[in-house]
Amino acid sequence: MYPKDLLILINFLRKLPGVGSKTAERFAFNLLNWDEESLKTFGKTLQEVKAKIAYCPECGCFMLQDECHFCKRSPEIICVISSPKDVFTIERTNSYNGLYHVIKGLLSPIDGKNESHLDLPKLSARIEKLKSKEVIVALDSTIEGDTTALYIKDQLKSLNVKISRLAFGLPIGSSLEYIDGGTLTQAIIGRQIY
Amino acid sequence: MYPKDLLILINFLRKLPGVGSKTAERFAFNLLNWDEESLKTFGKTLQEVKAKIAYCPECGCFMLQDECHFCKRSPEIICVISSPKDVFTIERTNSYNGLYHVIKGLLSPIDGKNESHLDLPKLSARIEKLKSKEVIVALDSTIEGDTTALYIKDQLKSLNVKISRLAFGLPIGSSLEYIDGGTLTQAIIGRQIY
Repeated sequence: MYPKDLLILINFLRKLPGVGSKTAERFAFNLLNWDEESLKTFGKTLQEVKAKIAYCPECGCFMLQDECHFCKRSPEIICVISSPKDVFTIERTNSYNGLYHVIKGLLSPIDGKNESHLDLPKLSARIEKLKSKEVIVALDSTIEGDTTALYIKDQLKSLNVKISRLAFGLPIGSSLEYIDGGTLTQAIIGRQIY
Repeated sequence: MYPKDLLILINFLRKLPGVGSKTAERFAFNLLNWDEESLKTFGKTLQEVKAKIAYCPECGCFMLQDECHFCKRSPEIICVISSPKDVFTIERTNSYNGLYHVIKGLLSPIDGKNESHLDLPKLSARIEKLKSKEVIVALDSTIEGDTTALYIKDQLKSLNVKISRLAFGLPIGSSLEYIDGGTLTQAIIGRQIY
């Protein structure tokens, strides 16, 4: 019953993560109230964003003004992440100052993503070239993240490098009452002498 | 720290209703994973959607294939709504089969929206021309909706037409325990002999 172009718009909006039909409709009707100029620029941005964003050929992070902000750092530690956006999450903590390496995805056989989708050969080469001492595997604590972490550990075992993974345990500010069993188990296994 | 074009995209996404910085970032990173073709078409749709959607010059509803789906109906009752999207909400109930009239907004002095922003003169003209017997005011039950409903009632009082407004009361499936005082008051005032 909606006009065709409105339907097309709603269908595109519904592809955004966490957006269902109702929200997509709400977004679409809201967009109809935007001024022509904003819609034009928004549309243009969408069309060009992929081409305009540059990734560092070394580490895979976003580049600003054609240079990588991170590759200049000390090469002692390399942090392995699955997507360039994770850089910002980690940087915001102000607790890491080493290199990054984006492996561009996680192993997920169910989605047809195998080791050929990961950017791992380059990681090994970088570790050898930079003589890094440690690799921090900073992947999701999901099945896919766990599998990928294990695979990376296996791939790097021939290299003379320490491999660590982010700690599992209670999130700060959490109440024991609401912690799931899996997390609590990891918190007990990983307990630290106080 | 994000590349400039990504920031522009995030800022546009943040303008959508109910979308804050976190969600906008999530949308933007998701969009970066869309294929080039989808992004191009999505962008094009955004740029053209306003121009491509036609509104009925009579009632203000969306037109499909250059004709108004609603203006052919019996002119006895006209339902006054604030936006073309309300048509779909009402149509989905299958409990109304009359005409519509979109007044394109609500009175909201705080946002600088006064009576000149409403499409009311055309409503009076339509009522007279069509010899309609009833006008149902189907506006939000908010301050703006109430004010506008009152204003419409006042504007139409010289015409020989019944003016009604959607009933206020308990939403279906609600528990008295969770109903706010204002709604309960309206439900008591509007109680129906059983």
